[in-house]
Amino acid sequence: MKDRIEVVEKIMSENERLALENLNLLNTAGILGLNLMASPGAGKTSLIENTLGALSNRTRIAVIDGDIATSIDADRAAAAGAVAVQINTGGQCHLDAVMLREALTQLNLDEIDLLIVENVGNLICPAEFRLGTHRSVLIASIPEGDDKPYKYPGMYRGVDALVINKTDLLPFVEFDMTYFQQGVQVLSPELVAFPLSCKNGEGMDLWINWVEDELSGHRGE
Amino acid sequence: MKDRIEVVEKIMSENERLALENLNLLNTAGILGLNLMASPGAGKTSLIENTLGALSNRTRIAVIDGDIATSIDADRAAAAGAVAVQINTGGQCHLDAVMLREALTQLNLDEIDLLIVENVGNLICPAEFRLGTHRSVLIASIPEGDDKPYKYPGMYRGVDALVINKTDLLPFVEFDMTYFQQGVQVLSPELVAFPLSCKNGEGMDLWINWVEDELSGHRGE
Repeated sequence: MKDRIEVVEKIMSENERLALENLNLLNTAGILGLNLMASPGAGKTSLIENTLGALSNRTRIAVIDGDIATSIDADRAAAAGAVAVQINTGGQCHLDAVMLREALTQLNLDEIDLLIVENVGNLICPAEFRLGTHRSVLIASIPEGDDKPYKYPGMYRGVDALVINKTDLLPFVEFDMTYFQQGVQVLSPELVAFPLSCKNGEGMDLWINWVEDELSGHRGE
Repeated sequence: MKDRIEVVEKIMSENERLALENLNLLNTAGILGLNLMASPGAGKTSLIENTLGALSNRTRIAVIDGDIATSIDADRAAAAGAVAVQINTGGQCHLDAVMLREALTQLNLDEIDLLIVENVGNLICPAEFRLGTHRSVLIASIPEGDDKPYKYPGMYRGVDALVINKTDLLPFVEFDMTYFQQGVQVLSPELVAFPLSCKNGEGMDLWINWVEDELSGHRGE
């Protein structure tokens, strides 16, 4: 057990070091980095497609897609107009700073304003590995249910922005928004929340405004 | 890295050994064990509630609930009439055979016919740790999307039964059942699939019949 703890600690501190290096790389190139996390099927790729649709005519966007298998998501991001790099984690349940570094070497950083990292679909492990991005964005999904902040506190803690996707399904499922947001509030009192539907576009404008504000802030405007 | 691999291999083989012991414990007591896996919010607890509602008048059912925090699920199972034991994994993203053993010691095995283990909500890690149950049951959920077998092959491989929950939402989301089932077929050609809705009950009878058949088979009837 002692061996195991030492090995895990070594991996974590090495990850922290590399995350800081990644952050420096992004800062030097003037890139804003977002780490997009969610459970499987919450809508990470759909949100990326919508964001590309709204911003790619005036912002140079790259997408790094983490998946345990297939390049379905990277293909969708590329089809929507992004420079897309696929990371196949080989079964691993999260991205880490090493994987992000490797993917960054495949991009021309001087030609990017916004980097969106699509983490592996998982509500537990991605929270434990810092990548070196500037903002953590969590996507919740209405049909997942309103108890998720209570059941996955690690993921809901320390998030900068929370997208609450699939609001178009609210009439068809039981979801107590007050109960949900009370749970969120305790864990990340400072976060901004964006209820929206990637399907019908409602609420998307506020999310896009937030991304643009973050971009401006990052450029020092 | 070598250290890390050795530690991981030691953990995995120790888990296999304990899983076999758990299986022997269940067999000695004449208990059928199901390992229920799914991503967050797919409906594990709702399926357990429905199963208890249909079977608890003629089958003695115990539920062991794995969660990284809270006892929400175990409380729901207990309210629905099961003997329920909560395992708090303390942040860990899956159950393992050690945790199941610990939970089994809290149950009177001679008074149980069916043990349902609700694994942690996660489409990656639970597949790697055998618990010692007889059947693996995966719950997919319609709003998660039809690409999940392709993106999470580890979890869809070697499954005995697949519940496809939330069919009541089929009219409101894009979900290509043929594409989905082709992906499933490649990974688990032998599995039985149960499209159903825990909300309105449609398709539930076939799932309940399967559980009863498995119980009969296990008793050697």
